[in-house]
Amino acid sequence: KGDAKAGEEKAVMCVACHGAKGKISVPLYPNLAGQNEAYLAHALHAYKKGERSGGQAEVMKAYVNGLSDEDIDNLAAYYASMEP
Amino acid sequence: KGDAKAGEEKAVMCVACHGAKGKISVPLYPNLAGQNEAYLAHALHAYKKGERSGGQAEVMKAYVNGLSDEDIDNLAAYYASMEP
Repeated sequence: KGDAKAGEEKAVMCVACHGAKGKISVPLYPNLAGQNEAYLAHALHAYKKGERSGGQAEVMKAYVNGLSDEDIDNLAAYYASMEP
Repeated sequence: KGDAKAGEEKAVMCVACHGAKGKISVPLYPNLAGQNEAYLAHALHAYKKGERSGGQAEVMKAYVNGLSDEDIDNLAAYYASMEP
């Protein structure tokens, strides 16, 4: 279980594509606000492990490569805590 | 742009894991309600093309293999139309 407050500090690099409140008008990118915490962590790990390709997967991999497991848990907690 | 009503008919196989209203208490699975339509279609195509692995990707691939491009567009429209 992550720390949403710590996740907020890490989320500065996420907002360009996913929006300051986890919702974004770019229809090809997913909204994150209120998404299930465990799924968010799973998806970030999947990008990091190279389990996703196509679309923006390489971009996501580049961002996620710099994150620790704790960072991932915290980011997941942060976005899961937002109002969808 | 898909037809949400047609998507609803195809969604009978999605509800076990993603919930009748696109929200699910299984934390490892993503909520779909109100997600961006183009992202939903992208994700379904990614599973179909084998661009995702790990987690439930093989399950998703098995389901999506039976869907046409039109089915995918309609399902994306259906879940995007739901209240998040």
